[in-house]
Amino acid sequence: MENNHAAFAPMLSFSDGFAAIEFYKKAFGAETYRVFDHEGRMHVGEMFIEGALFRLREETPKWNFMSPGTLGGITVQVCIFVADPGAMADRAVAAGATLVNPVQDWDYGYRQATVKDPFGHYWQFEKKI
Amino acid sequence: MENNHAAFAPMLSFSDGFAAIEFYKKAFGAETYRVFDHEGRMHVGEMFIEGALFRLREETPKWNFMSPGTLGGITVQVCIFVADPGAMADRAVAAGATLVNPVQDWDYGYRQATVKDPFGHYWQFEKKI
Repeated sequence: MENNHAAFAPMLSFSDGFAAIEFYKKAFGAETYRVFDHEGRMHVGEMFIEGALFRLREETPKWNFMSPGTLGGITVQVCIFVADPGAMADRAVAAGATLVNPVQDWDYGYRQATVKDPFGHYWQFEKKI
Repeated sequence: MENNHAAFAPMLSFSDGFAAIEFYKKAFGAETYRVFDHEGRMHVGEMFIEGALFRLREETPKWNFMSPGTLGGITVQVCIFVADPGAMADRAVAAGATLVNPVQDWDYGYRQATVKDPFGHYWQFEKKI
């Protein structure tokens, strides 16, 4: 966010945002930045992975902004460029994520690995090669 | 992606990826980077908004990775830090997006505006204040 270009900071939906924070700490080494409560439940949580911001929000029916379990799928895959995609996927799987695609170098110029987290969100870890 | 920290590059699902590319050019000033076809349909499209990469992918049933229209909601809201959130929202609405939250300064430190695009994806444009 200190850059001179734009930066994505996706907001993911969960039925239990606090459980997600605990998982992402362990699985991705994510750091909690701050959590906003509202009437006893999580409003928005903010976390960083290697300096990149993302958000967690509990289900918000007025926008049909729901967790993958509730909706039965995903509408956005969370892709993130990191230092070591394979190591990130290994750590996530050790913490309980499911391996979707093992780390691989692709001829379109990326090393990519994909996991599905216990909440149903898909994470693609990648770097330019 | 030239930074020394991680960067999110979300991948959004569409029933018609090429229609989405045309809309995002007009609505967000997005630039098309490259498009990979596969058996006559879009495999993955890559676009930039003010230097930040995002992807478009047509529906992929094996992952239940579907468009908001098909799934009846969203699991991730696409948030992006840009130079001028209000101007971006205005341009998007002029191109056919629906205003969800008008631009506003929040005491948690962000200026934010939210629109829903014609494909059902939610975009939050924001900057630090």
